Parts: sequence; structure tokens; C-alpha cells
Amino acid sequence: MAGQTDDSKRDVTVLGLGTMGRALAGALLAGGARVTVWNRTPGREGDLVAGGAVAAASAAEAVAASRTVVVCLLDHASVHEVLDPVADRLAGRVLVELTNGSPEQAGELAGWAGRHGVELLSGGIMAVPPMIGTPAAFVLYSGSRAVFEEQRPLLDLLGESVFAGEEPGRAALQDLALLSAMYGMFGGVLHAYALAGAGGVAAGELAPLLRRWLGAMSDFVDGAAAQIDSGDHARDVVSNLAMQAAAYPGLVAVSRAHGVDPALLTPLGELMRRRVDDGHGHEDITGVVELLRTREGSR
Amino acid sequence: MAGQTDDSKRDVTVLGLGTMGRALAGALLAGGARVTVWNRTPGREGDLVAGGAVAAASAAEAVAASRTVVVCLLDHASVHEVLDPVADRLAGRVLVELTNGSPEQAGELAGWAGRHGVELLSGGIMAVPPMIGTPAAFVLYSGSRAVFEEQRPLLDLLGESVFAGEEPGRAALQDLALLSAMYGMFGGVLHAYALAGAGGVAAGELAPLLRRWLGAMSDFVDGAAAQIDSGDHARDVVSNLAMQAAAYPGLVAVSRAHGVDPALLTPLGELMRRRVDDGHGHEDITGVVELLRTREGSR
Repeated sequence: MAGQTDDSKRDVTVLGLGTMGRALAGALLAGGARVTVWNRTPGREGDLVAGGAVAAASAAEAVAASRTVVVCLLDHASVHEVLDPVADRLAGRVLVELTNGSPEQAGELAGWAGRHGVELLSGGIMAVPPMIGTPAAFVLYSGSRAVFEEQRPLLDLLGESVFAGEEPGRAALQDLALLSAMYGMFGGVLHAYALAGAGGVAAGELAPLLRRWLGAMSDFVDGAAAQIDSGDHARDVVSNLAMQAAAYPGLVAVSRAHGVDPALLTPLGELMRRRVDDGHGHEDITGVVELLRTREGSR
Repeated sequence: MAGQTDDSKRDVTVLGLGTMGRALAGALLAGGARVTVWNRTPGREGDLVAGGAVAAASAAEAVAASRTVVVCLLDHASVHEVLDPVADRLAGRVLVELTNGSPEQAGELAGWAGRHGVELLSGGIMAVPPMIGTPAAFVLYSGSRAVFEEQRPLLDLLGESVFAGEEPGRAALQDLALLSAMYGMFGGVLHAYALAGAGGVAAGELAPLLRRWLGAMSDFVDGAAAQIDSGDHARDVVSNLAMQAAAYPGLVAVSRAHGVDPALLTPLGELMRRRVDDGHGHEDITGVVELLRTREGSR
């Protein structure tokens, strides 16, 4: 079996062969690792086996095959359903947990791993499956830095490996923060296409401008970080909030006039207005984060 | 006066010396144009005059100085307040209107220009003032293509000039569509920083990941355009809406659990849920645009 060879650091087991799990196993295979795969529902391993993977007959056999066990399942409950019965076999191995989940779930699994003598890396995959194994993908990991460094040659086959910190939930937290920014951008893009379309401009006509504009405006990411970390939203203001808040209703009104529901735009406009009303019109739009924090100490 | 020289195509007047108007005048000066400036409230032209601009004593004098008159004022009402009294002098000249406004206002001004024998280019500046005159800036123009091409050497001094179409409101519409996408991204970034901060991750720590992630996810702009223009949201689906809609409440719940108001996230989640409930869970998230269109024919 693959796990019994000398170069044991290149042995890896993948539990869970959904779209993402299959992409992970494929990238590990492509990188030269000896890959053992297993899925609760059989029949998803065919082309991976054709590519050189070993299909294990059970989760226990799959876990026993490699020092490193990558898990990518439906949700946190599935992780326990699959791993609890094989906890003894996992002892002394490295569990790389890539199932989507919350910081709290990562913390819970860290406790479980500690009780069972399992080294845990909790990861957050920042990629869609087709990106796995390409330079565009990156994966956040939290857990022991020593274990992360030891596993890195293997992990780097999936995409760039980014260490998010020793605290177990840190990778999941950063993953969710990044996702929320993505959904903000997606919502904005969808509104933009709806508005342009309502005025007879095809999405394909707007797309190159939109890509360029969002690229230029992504400088906001760095400027906002400096303002937010300093707590000084009045520093290096490019366009003050009062001006932006004054123009924003026009954007909402034009959307409505063109038959486009402004639902994706209105919450930010309300927050901007509240912030101006609170006397922060001279500051930048980043002051809105202060309104998002609903309790003290959430900074 | 500058307007009386031979190379009259390089003569330009700028009406309105707010932050943006000053940036425009500065870029025109830097590009070698002979610039005449005027502002309703005097005293804002000092350094422009030091840089070679001519300060006109009145709007009428300013208009008379150049074949091309750039206007960048507070709002549409200001445009009429300034231009109505000098309409006769504007006849036969090119008016480049860069004041923020709606497609409807651009259409109204196009009618006004037509009645007064003025050639109008209605523009939308896609840049903040410090970007003016750099390759990062671009400006959308609608109006006569011939006039646009004639003015292009001058306009290109401000940033890349993009022709948006002959219909007067098209530049404003595309401008507002692009702005809505930007505000979506800004809202997402602000939520991301609030959530990260609530978990003890500084904005500056998240920033490089955020920038990279948004850059990678901006492929959505092109993929979504193809889906939206085809009306087929089930084509080339990377991650189906049902899966995304199922995971989204977790993102909202984690935000709440960390004391972060999910106000900027919830509208998209509701739209995703509605779309899944309508039987479109197998499609991509782009189907949400169909829900944003509140009346027929708004495509």
C-alpha cells in the first residue's frame, strides 16, 4: 500500500470526493504524491484511480494508508460521522481539515484532535475547484506552525499555503471574512449588470470597464486597512463621506427609475447616512465599520 | 487670450474648480494645453495660474476663451445656473460636461445643447481626483462620435477616453453602474474587516489576502456577463446557487456570533434564497439579476 513506502511524507489520503475533494486529490496526484482516496458513497474515485490513486475500501483503511489525511466533506457533522469511528487510527497522524466551517467548529475539532493525539491543521480553501493546483489558489491553515511547515511541500501542491496563526479558528475566520468581501463584490457586479441592462447596455459591453474599474478601486483594500487599524477614519481621506452620502441617493433613484430593485445598495447608503448624522461626514467611508461592530470589544 | 492662437484645438476652458475641476485643469496644463479657468467663488485658481492657466473674470469670458469648455460643478442645477446665462457664447463650441449626474439629466442637457447650437459630450469620470491624468483613470463619453474623435487628443490628457455611445445618457448610466459595483465591493471589504477585527485579525493582516482574493474572484465579471447576456444562468456553473445559498446563512451567523451586524450581507442572501425557492438552485448566482429587474422590458 502507498503508505508503506520510504518517502512517507508524500503519502496522502483524501476523505471525501465531492467536486472539491476530487480537485484536491487530482492536484496531489499531479504533484507526484501517492494518493489514497475514499468516499462515503462509492463510485466517485474512477478517474482518480486511473490517474494512479489507490481506492480504499473503508475510511479506516484510507486513514491507515498515509501519515497525512486530508478531509473535505459536506459539513462539520459529516466530519465527525466519518472521523469519530476511526479516531484511534488517526492518532499520531496529521489531519488537514478543509471542510467549510466556522471558527467555532474549527475550535471544537481542535479539542477533539487533542484528545485523540491527532495533529490538526484547519484550513480554508480560497479557490473554486478548477483553480486547485494552480498559482491562483491559496489555502489558509491554522494550527501548529511546526506541523504546517512539515506538511508544506505536500500542501503547496494544492495552491499557495498561507499560515493564518496557531489559534484553530483563525483560518476559518479569515476564510469567511474573505468570502463576505467576495459576496459584496458579486452583489455590486450583479446590480451593475442589472442597471446597465435596463439602460440597454449589454453586460458584455460593461464587463471590460467593470473589470478595470474594480481593479483600480481595489486600492481601497489597503487604504481602508490603514484607516481601520489606526481607528482614524479622517486620515488620508480621498472623497469624504458627506459627499459620498449626498450622491448615493441619486444612484438608488436612478436604479429605481430604470426598474432595478436597489436592495443590494440600500444598506450601505443607510450606514453612510447614519455615520454622517453622527458627525463623521468629514471622514472616509471606512468609518462605517464602527457601525457594523454591534458590541464593545468586537475590535 | 489663449483662445485666439493658431493651435486652437489645444485651448480649453475649465468651469468649476472643486477638487475634481482642479485636477482636470492641472492635467490639461501638464499636457501642454492652454487652459482658462473660472470658479463661481474666486480664490481657487491661484496655483493653476502659477502653473500657466489664465483666470477668467467671468463665466462668459471663460467660455469665449476656448473652443472646448469643460464643466465640472456640484450638480446638474449648478450646471444650468452657470451655463444658461452664457448659452449664446457657447454656440458653436464643444461642451464637455463632467458633473456627476443621471442619464436623464444628461438627456435634458443634450436637448438644451441642441437648442443652443452647442456640441455636447456628456462624460462620466471613473477616477478619484489624484488619478486624473494617470493611466489608471478613464472617462466615459457619450454624444457625437465625430466630436468625440475630434476632441480626443485633449480628452486623453485626463485619462483614457472611452466612447460610451451616441445616446446622451449612456455615459452616465455606465458610470452609475460601475459605481454601484464599487460600492458593493466597498461594502464587502468593510464587512470583511469588521469580521476579521472581531476575531482579532488586524485589517492590515487581512489586506494582502483580500486583495489577492478579490483579484482572483474578479473573473466573475466576465463569466457573469456571458451568463447574463445569454439569459442562461445554468451555463458554465462553477458553484451552484443551491450550495452557495445553503452555506450563506453560516456566514451571516458567524458574523452575528462575533458581534458584527450582517446588514451588508443579508440582502444578497435573501435574493439567493428566493431564487433557489423559485427552482433555480442548479443555476449560478447570476440568476439573481432576474430578481433585481422589477419590471418587464428592463433588460
